Amino acid sequence: MKNFITIEGCDGVGKTWQTNLLKQYCLKNGYDVVFTREPGGSEIAEKIRNIILDVKNQGMSDLCEAFLYASARIQHLHDIVKPALEQGKVVFCDRFIHSSYAYQGFGRGINLDTVVHLNELAIGEYTPQYVIFLDLSPEEAFKRKGGADKNDRMENVDFSFHQRVYDGYKHFANANPDTFVCIDASGTVEETHNKIVAALKQKGIL
Amino acid sequence: MKNFITIEGCDGVGKTWQTNLLKQYCLKNGYDVVFTREPGGSEIAEKIRNIILDVKNQGMSDLCEAFLYASARIQHLHDIVKPALEQGKVVFCDRFIHSSYAYQGFGRGINLDTVVHLNELAIGEYTPQYVIFLDLSPEEAFKRKGGADKNDRMENVDFSFHQRVYDGYKHFANANPDTFVCIDASGTVEETHNKIVAALKQKGIL
Repeated sequence: MKNFITIEGCDGVGKTWQTNLLKQYCLKNGYDVVFTREPGGSEIAEKIRNIILDVKNQGMSDLCEAFLYASARIQHLHDIVKPALEQGKVVFCDRFIHSSYAYQGFGRGINLDTVVHLNELAIGEYTPQYVIFLDLSPEEAFKRKGGADKNDRMENVDFSFHQRVYDGYKHFANANPDTFVCIDASGTVEETHNKIVAALKQKGIL
Repeated sequence: MKNFITIEGCDGVGKTWQTNLLKQYCLKNGYDVVFTREPGGSEIAEKIRNIILDVKNQGMSDLCEAFLYASARIQHLHDIVKPALEQGKVVFCDRFIHSSYAYQGFGRGINLDTVVHLNELAIGEYTPQYVIFLDLSPEEAFKRKGGADKNDRMENVDFSFHQRVYDGYKHFANANPDTFVCIDASGTVEETHNKIVAALKQKGIL
């Protein structure tokens, strides 16, 4: 879908920081943009996510969770993304279907075909025009964060999980070279920001 | 899935009554059965349905609703139906996928392929072995209820909706003659009950 851009990457890659810098850049230069992330202020989508995140719901099946994420995604598209696109705005969404594919499919091991298929049914024609993928290996992301940190979520899960997520992103980047805009995120914050802006200009988005 | 039986039919056809009679018959005759209906005592499925039914959520998109129903269905399968089938019980479920197809697809006009497809992803191999379809045209169901009744939900919606739901059921019954067990529900309660029991005996379920 024209003007619908998603921003993806592994935990620790600096995605939130880069998204905020890009937003500031767009606002400063007068671009008519909307920045969002699921549930993005959609009240119904938020209620759905509360069920997913409620620690009381430990017995939730993986597939039920995947369907609930898709349900919240549909409502966020309906309430936030579609109206903005119809008004001619460029919409940047922090994480979208490829997070589900990488984290739920590759990371958690839910059948990838099922995760892809149900999300395709959920989003219909709203596939992103471009996916900005902040490319940094999980080892480097981990080093960047200064290694051992007991309060860091990275410490609490099997490291191979993050490797699988990264491999998942690379799989989709290789399979969709026209859609994926791979940004080497190994440099400084400023360098990565400049690469993102340059890539978006080259694509005619900015 | 062997021993998984669903019970379907239009509003007003006497489905709840027949389900209760069948349950009494099975218990009296010592069959090892479970009778359930979504959300069927699954706590998570119930929370999901509360979101669907909450009148505050008027802005919910049809597709989001269809995905939420599928999410609740997955969890009900996971919590109630699968464990019972694994214990060797016969499971009777009051309404299942064909209610979604008939009511959401045919009745509400949500794209039928999408509704079918997302439910197929949701239930996987748990397609019903038999669908007991209580067949009574919406006109007859309406007459049986004594016609005009201002408190009757049938009064409050376009009658063509019920005709579309019925046509939907007939569509799937014709397309799946080996699965659908069509029971003429135009006779007395006792007659219909006897037909259901006879059909289940003929199929080797009872």
